[in-house]
Amino acid sequence: MYTHIVQYYETDRMGIVHHSNYVRWMEEARLFYLGEIGYAYDKMENDGIISPVVSVECSYKKTSTYGDTINIEVTATGCNKIKLFLSYVMKNQNEDIVCEANSSHCFLNDKGAPIRLDRDFPGFYEAIMNNIK
Amino acid sequence: MYTHIVQYYETDRMGIVHHSNYVRWMEEARLFYLGEIGYAYDKMENDGIISPVVSVECSYKKTSTYGDTINIEVTATGCNKIKLFLSYVMKNQNEDIVCEANSSHCFLNDKGAPIRLDRDFPGFYEAIMNNIK
Amino acid sequence: MYTHIVQYYETDRMGIVHHSNYVRWMEEARLFYLGEIGYAYDKMENDGIISPVVSVECSYKKTSTYGDTINIEVTATGCNKIKLFLSYVMKNQNEDIVCEANSSHCFLNDKGAPIRLDRDFPGFYEAIMNNIK
Amino acid sequence: MYTHIVQYYETDRMGIVHHSNYVRWMEEARLFYLGEIGYAYDKMENDGIISPVVSVECSYKKTSTYGDTINIEVTATGCNKIKLFLSYVMKNQNEDIVCEANSSHCFLNDKGAPIRLDRDFPGFYEAIMNNIK
Repeated sequence: MYTHIVQYYETDRMGIVHHSNYVRWMEEARLFYLGEIGYAYDKMENDGIISPVVSVECSYKKTSTYGDTINIEVTATGCNKIKLFLSYVMKNQNEDIVCEANSSHCFLNDKGAPIRLDRDFPGFYEAIMNNIK
Repeated sequence: MYTHIVQYYETDRMGIVHHSNYVRWMEEARLFYLGEIGYAYDKMENDGIISPVVSVECSYKKTSTYGDTINIEVTATGCNKIKLFLSYVMKNQNEDIVCEANSSHCFLNDKGAPIRLDRDFPGFYEAIMNNIK
Repeated sequence: MYTHIVQYYETDRMGIVHHSNYVRWMEEARLFYLGEIGYAYDKMENDGIISPVVSVECSYKKTSTYGDTINIEVTATGCNKIKLFLSYVMKNQNEDIVCEANSSHCFLNDKGAPIRLDRDFPGFYEAIMNNIK
Repeated sequence: MYTHIVQYYETDRMGIVHHSNYVRWMEEARLFYLGEIGYAYDKMENDGIISPVVSVECSYKKTSTYGDTINIEVTATGCNKIKLFLSYVMKNQNEDIVCEANSSHCFLNDKGAPIRLDRDFPGFYEAIMNNIK
């Protein structure tokens, strides 16, 4: 479980967190999750692998603001030969869901070509497959 | 048509625009669009109406980077009693689609209660309905 | 001592943290510091006091990047009737100084008028004076 | 003269532009200025030269908010063998100064070593010297 404390600069003049920041928190939680399953993203980059975001979707359920504590649960929901699918549930300090989100990701080698996960990155593929819910 | 010039600070260490910025560009283009149809958002706020984002989704088609020119076309795709639905197509200077996106929005009055658009904000409702494609 | 873990979205295409983020980290550390001396900023805002930033200056000593741990020490360096002066030293996980910074701040009441700190906000004034180094 | 239109996402819950954004606008105006004198920054990067920011300072004179038009004048105030010094005056649509700022910059070659501007990048050095006020 990853925790993000809402910063003042993340609010907008509506008095709440600007909605674009949830996409950033998804990244924070995702990279934490990858580290937890043994694939820290900085190490992946050092190994010549980058992972661009293919899609994101956020459904905002409740507003957040400065000082809130946001707990983010990341779940791998699928993985095929070239794409990883993740979902996110973000809850505040009162256990209210503030945002539900999904993202998909591909993986590129140092030549910019897509990596076939099952064949060319099997340890990662297996780690994800073992964590899919 | 709204145009955004990509700034250096919008890139990340992958060398490309960080994906969260497309959500910000959606806002830029959306507020421009609202102004075009006669409902500038600062005027709406002055009138006591705010419009939180209910959902966003982005599908990234091609990377962008510093100096690119991104033209964003906003289309109203639907409007019901309480929600507005918009879609976005973002193209770079070579006419390549870089991102396709959607968002939905509700409207709150100065008491924080949802506005029923057809009944309580009919001029806006009509302006949107006339622009739906 | 406040700690910030560098996020991926804080980097730019030079591969390092974009320099504007250090100004945001100053805010994170400053609001943490205010909480530590008994004046949490959300409570101040609830009491009708806001504190705009009057000036900032940053001197960048060493680059940072994704995954770095930045420890930030905030010191009150002065306080007069209307302004608070703070300094910041930011060190990475190797104890290298990455940034030295300063900021000044005024305080406004709910009518937007400047607060005379010694007379109108004496508890805060005293708390700062006791912490000046 | 560079112009920035203030975006909604640049505001914070004080209702005004978050002060960190002025540092970003300095970058926008600076890269525009470099383009104007014939040294577009993307071209410099392609030539293997990067220019980290050494220091920034901002003095905030007046608040800005969503929809404001900020005109930014950049002036080269000095250049020595290794550093460039710039100053910035930012005015809003009413000709009020909102921020005065300064920055300094060094230049690194593709090996990460500092470039001696007068000797190793003489065209740029001369262009700056001709523009110093």
